[in-house]
Amino acid sequence: MPTYSNMDKALLSEEYKKLSEKYADYKARGLSLNMARGKPGAEQVSISNDMLNVIDPSTVFATEDCPDVRNYGCLDGIAEAKKIFADILNVGVENIFVGGNSSLNMMFDTIACFMEQGAGGKPWNQQGNIKFLCPAPGYDRHFGVTQYFGIEMVTVPMTENGPDMDVIEKLVSEDASIKGIWCVPKYSNPQGITYSDETVRRFAALKPAAKDFRIMWDNAYVIHDINGTPDTLLNIFDEVKKNGSEDMVIEFCSTSKITFPGAGVAALAASKNNLAILKKRYNFQTIGYDKINMLRHVLYFKNIDGVMAHMQKHRAVLEPRFKMVTDMLSEELSGLGVAEWTNPNGGYFVSVDVNEGCAKRVVALCKEAGVILTGAGATYPYGKDPKDSNIRLAPTYPPIEELKVAMEVFCTSVKLAALEKLI
Amino acid sequence: MPTYSNMDKALLSEEYKKLSEKYADYKARGLSLNMARGKPGAEQVSISNDMLNVIDPSTVFATEDCPDVRNYGCLDGIAEAKKIFADILNVGVENIFVGGNSSLNMMFDTIACFMEQGAGGKPWNQQGNIKFLCPAPGYDRHFGVTQYFGIEMVTVPMTENGPDMDVIEKLVSEDASIKGIWCVPKYSNPQGITYSDETVRRFAALKPAAKDFRIMWDNAYVIHDINGTPDTLLNIFDEVKKNGSEDMVIEFCSTSKITFPGAGVAALAASKNNLAILKKRYNFQTIGYDKINMLRHVLYFKNIDGVMAHMQKHRAVLEPRFKMVTDMLSEELSGLGVAEWTNPNGGYFVSVDVNEGCAKRVVALCKEAGVILTGAGATYPYGKDPKDSNIRLAPTYPPIEELKVAMEVFCTSVKLAALEKLI
Repeated sequence: MPTYSNMDKALLSEEYKKLSEKYADYKARGLSLNMARGKPGAEQVSISNDMLNVIDPSTVFATEDCPDVRNYGCLDGIAEAKKIFADILNVGVENIFVGGNSSLNMMFDTIACFMEQGAGGKPWNQQGNIKFLCPAPGYDRHFGVTQYFGIEMVTVPMTENGPDMDVIEKLVSEDASIKGIWCVPKYSNPQGITYSDETVRRFAALKPAAKDFRIMWDNAYVIHDINGTPDTLLNIFDEVKKNGSEDMVIEFCSTSKITFPGAGVAALAASKNNLAILKKRYNFQTIGYDKINMLRHVLYFKNIDGVMAHMQKHRAVLEPRFKMVTDMLSEELSGLGVAEWTNPNGGYFVSVDVNEGCAKRVVALCKEAGVILTGAGATYPYGKDPKDSNIRLAPTYPPIEELKVAMEVFCTSVKLAALEKLI
Repeated sequence: MPTYSNMDKALLSEEYKKLSEKYADYKARGLSLNMARGKPGAEQVSISNDMLNVIDPSTVFATEDCPDVRNYGCLDGIAEAKKIFADILNVGVENIFVGGNSSLNMMFDTIACFMEQGAGGKPWNQQGNIKFLCPAPGYDRHFGVTQYFGIEMVTVPMTENGPDMDVIEKLVSEDASIKGIWCVPKYSNPQGITYSDETVRRFAALKPAAKDFRIMWDNAYVIHDINGTPDTLLNIFDEVKKNGSEDMVIEFCSTSKITFPGAGVAALAASKNNLAILKKRYNFQTIGYDKINMLRHVLYFKNIDGVMAHMQKHRAVLEPRFKMVTDMLSEELSGLGVAEWTNPNGGYFVSVDVNEGCAKRVVALCKEAGVILTGAGATYPYGKDPKDSNIRLAPTYPPIEELKVAMEVFCTSVKLAALEKLI
């Protein structure tokens, strides 16, 4: 089939009629499917079930540096959990702070901390209008946190190598009101792009006008490969060390997509100076996070090898799902000039760029036919995709047979929306 | 023995010599004892061990309103956990938000939320200098949170019926910069005082000049009785409802001293309006707290009766400890005119008022002899006890034989410090 834009009116009408009938059939089925959130599916949340009885009354509750994990104390987590996170992120254990069940919460608290106390300079909330760079398409919850704190968001375009570093270098060197940037450096949300070595090096070499500029390095998918050709990401902490700019980066990760989304363990990695600032706040905020759950993870995984072996079980569930999604996109949409998409080697999303001005319509068509997608625009600051083009597909949650139907509806809707524009 | 102040110089010198020798003996023993924090002891943290294998792979992870507790979602907690907290606090389930492992964290986040968003009015951090009332002696971590956020603390004296309501009524009606008050209404920290019905009613009837005035009702010891004559506390939510001032109170509690100090579940109770404000923030801060741990608690306790039966096991551990402490205070210090103390029916502390100007000295003497107490002054805002008189004893953590020795050292130190002033 030729691209739609090369078809004559008659052919377009015929195609539109055919697709409309197909769409009407789907609609008549009264579907209720959901591809909206990057949520592990039922199979995945069962993978770690054995972790739930790894602790029993016979367990020794004293750990290397904590006399009793059941009791208060040990603000920054138990040594054994720090070690596992240090190995996952390839940083020193002395750089690790192990928190509660959510890295989003740790990111939120980090921004709150810098608003209240500053990041080595004046508190951010006493510096007037401040800004954050937001590579987009990006993670809607990052943008949500930024907006909650009243920080102005500045969109930075994504390239196949990560955020456009020319833009970033220029902006941060000129504007001292830019206090930070959100990054998902590996298998970025939603595109699944891993930042190139050069991108990481250029991040580490940034010379921001703001001395209190911070890179929020959300390494959510650090070991979340979904096929046999995983990406590799340069270790930014090694690079900033070379430049003496270790204070510029704070890295986050969690086991939410390793063990249990609702009951994992989150951690951050930061320089000595940043840890001191953050701990000053944590010290008032809590007496300590759930160390029994840390121990549960430690006893279950034992070490980084245990974690990596475990990730193969997730890959086994996810690989066929992602393959199905990208195969269907190829089969249904290739060559029509209606969409471009990514083929990620890891992460939780496939990003689809439909024709300009069509994303909202596609999402609406899907919704009408009972398929919920992430809202169009959600991947951009303030929920506004300037081209109304990007759609995030989250293939992990629905049962695979439902995913297939949802993708059929999606592909049909993409074509219909494109045809509506042409006819 | 007569009171010290009625003794003549010779008798005082003799007593001082005798006590100094006794003190030197303790010192020579190289003790290392700790009565500083309200931390459950080893016996107590083992009481709930069976909870740790109540969940296993055969558990049904779907609950009343949550399709899978292992996964993301259910921001305000699972219905079954809400029910237990609602029954503990005697409020409606619709008023409950179940959080992470720490009520301190929820209090901190509540203050942070009001600083950022306001409590129905302008954000607190945009209202210039604001103040909080701090009944004292009180809980040092409350004061810590207040100080962290730069809120000015105004000390309110405690009476045997709770905070001095005459003072509070006058202050809040006159000064709109007073935005709130910290209360531990049952078995107060450190005195173990339970607010009288009249005190609770006067709290509920407050007419603050600040419309965004909030009572932080930290009901940490709501069911934490330690003997057969427990106190009862009027339900403040019933009272504020009568006055249409439900937005004035936010109540906090947790299972930290019911199950595991480091791995319990915390909750707050608040009006619809306050919940809306708080949830706006929580919605950006996290996708949800650890619902597996909520389910663990629910399956273990089943209901409020299970919780209450469980508290009897804590009482069995704590009653002899508190009895020993107050018995020793009576035997060693009664009638000497060197100290007054409380005999609480619950909670985690015994509060001792030594002679004016002696508290720091007593704490120092104890420290020198290897017994760590809560720092003198810690029970007052900014760590400054105007009379240098209050000392908080925390009898729960050390093994009971160590507690006995620690109390001997303490009583000896109290007498020595008093004699030093007299001689």
